[in-house]
Amino acid sequence: MTRESRRISSVRILTERQLRRCVDLDAEALEVIDDAFTWLAERPVDMPPVQHISVIGDAASGPVGDVDIKSAFVPGLDRFAIKIASGFFGNTSLGLPTGSGLMVVLDTDTGLCRAVLLDNGYLTDLRTALAGGVAARHLAPDDVEVAGVLGTGRQAELQARALHLVRPFSRLLIHGRTPAHASRLADRLRKKLDDVTLELVSSPREVIRRSRCVVTTTAAHEPLVRAEWLHPGLHITAMGSDLPGKQELAPETLLRADLCVFDRRAQCERLGELQHVAEDRRAELAWCELGEVTSGAHAGRIDASAVTVCDLTGTGVQDTAIASHVLEKAEALGFGSEIDLA
Amino acid sequence: MTRESRRISSVRILTERQLRRCVDLDAEALEVIDDAFTWLAERPVDMPPVQHISVIGDAASGPVGDVDIKSAFVPGLDRFAIKIASGFFGNTSLGLPTGSGLMVVLDTDTGLCRAVLLDNGYLTDLRTALAGGVAARHLAPDDVEVAGVLGTGRQAELQARALHLVRPFSRLLIHGRTPAHASRLADRLRKKLDDVTLELVSSPREVIRRSRCVVTTTAAHEPLVRAEWLHPGLHITAMGSDLPGKQELAPETLLRADLCVFDRRAQCERLGELQHVAEDRRAELAWCELGEVTSGAHAGRIDASAVTVCDLTGTGVQDTAIASHVLEKAEALGFGSEIDLA
Repeated sequence: MTRESRRISSVRILTERQLRRCVDLDAEALEVIDDAFTWLAERPVDMPPVQHISVIGDAASGPVGDVDIKSAFVPGLDRFAIKIASGFFGNTSLGLPTGSGLMVVLDTDTGLCRAVLLDNGYLTDLRTALAGGVAARHLAPDDVEVAGVLGTGRQAELQARALHLVRPFSRLLIHGRTPAHASRLADRLRKKLDDVTLELVSSPREVIRRSRCVVTTTAAHEPLVRAEWLHPGLHITAMGSDLPGKQELAPETLLRADLCVFDRRAQCERLGELQHVAEDRRAELAWCELGEVTSGAHAGRIDASAVTVCDLTGTGVQDTAIASHVLEKAEALGFGSEIDLA
Repeated sequence: MTRESRRISSVRILTERQLRRCVDLDAEALEVIDDAFTWLAERPVDMPPVQHISVIGDAASGPVGDVDIKSAFVPGLDRFAIKIASGFFGNTSLGLPTGSGLMVVLDTDTGLCRAVLLDNGYLTDLRTALAGGVAARHLAPDDVEVAGVLGTGRQAELQARALHLVRPFSRLLIHGRTPAHASRLADRLRKKLDDVTLELVSSPREVIRRSRCVVTTTAAHEPLVRAEWLHPGLHITAMGSDLPGKQELAPETLLRADLCVFDRRAQCERLGELQHVAEDRRAELAWCELGEVTSGAHAGRIDASAVTVCDLTGTGVQDTAIASHVLEKAEALGFGSEIDLA
């Protein structure tokens, strides 16, 4: 950054459409998120706890939405992001997406706002799916012929695609509570993964039993995966739980795994699968953080028969990484509106 | 990634210049902030803890900046704000203001982004000063001939002006560590408070001794005000401390006061003057929250000779209140750029 660009000049406003032209779910973006976890392990990143806002409706109608705010300052980068992500489940009835959001990018030297990325949650979706890809890259066995996904939402689709970037499986088993949703997911994926056989499967158990790599992408509040189903050479990435009370894996699953990998352990204790492992049993876990694996400080999977589990809750460092990356591209392409700040 | 068609309309982007034309430090805005504290007392507001990011410089250079993120959902309002405020003290050498920031306004029903207020910290400055005005309105004695301010920064100026809205003092005593800064503050205030005599005073003690209402607006990390200086009929608003380690009042000041008022007690325990009052002595405090006073649930000042202290750390509900107010005005005036979200 030149000194001139540090003056209060302008803020670049980018829309989802422009951002989609800058970054996609591909190998290049995967490296960005891989690097992000390495930064988290190697640099004195300041990543504060998630700020959570509960939006409640009238009287007895209960919660209508949640907003999570994540951020991370990464030494060595000249910008950092503050990411606002909302989930409002009543939006479906209004013909609107349930998830939305935006990112604000600040200058590391001055704290001034450099850009607002009006991505409607696109960048969050990407960086979340890519973390699944990064986990599988380092933790799944080398040869994954059959992969599985539990859940049928947007992340189910994106996680399957991210996994395929690093483990080009030939068959994908899909399980969802609602068969019509599973079927629609298969239709969407057919267009993206044209050399993959898509198979709808009636139970989570069968998905786990037949797959070498499974991603769980549900909003479950009770375990879908039982420890008895684990088998040698299995890797599971659980990315659904990101709030207190959410859960996809029986706690015993983590305890029996040869290695548990957390995106950020302290956060997984509050928001992830780890919240359900009794505190007095946590000492039994064989664990590390994902950044230790991406950086090479930890070996990750040590042999083909190991069982590995990765618990992803979503971290601010991923937001800062994807925001920095996309903004650099947008600047190079001259995308966005400049709003005069002075 | 494809998405169904939707009716995400647009986001309104407002600049500091436009926002300044919508809201000023005046009686109308004071009511907005007075109401905000009442909401905090009377409604089930969700106001999460402040998210704090420390931005550190190269190697030995130490901290270069802080970013605080505040927010509050207020039942009954159709929008809420997420406020990002930065303080980078090295900016002065670059010819930039040390404080900056912006507010993001979300829709309460859908979580969608409605507006981005690129205020460079203007709205934060206003709502902070107005909270001082609200505190004095309810807590200062009715007749304040002489008022005082400790500190010479932007808040010193704004707090003096906000105080004058509710207690039109005829003399203002100003103390700052650097006489040239105090003198410049007096010059600035002379233009705004033309019927007030401005007097530079060499010690905090003299300011306290001679005033009936004092605002402390410094970045001090050691007490400036000692309990021995308190006198009947004094009100002090301490608004400088908003981070761990900051302090303007000796803890005994709070303990000796007839009433301590906190903007949010839990936050004052972490960030405000209350952090320095030993935990085992906090039971001795006569205290309430500011919203209890603005709502009438607590009497506030009970007689002319009481000593009252108000500890302000800055709350998300103030941000949501000022953001909602200014956005309504901007919409009515047709200000701002509309960015298509779809």
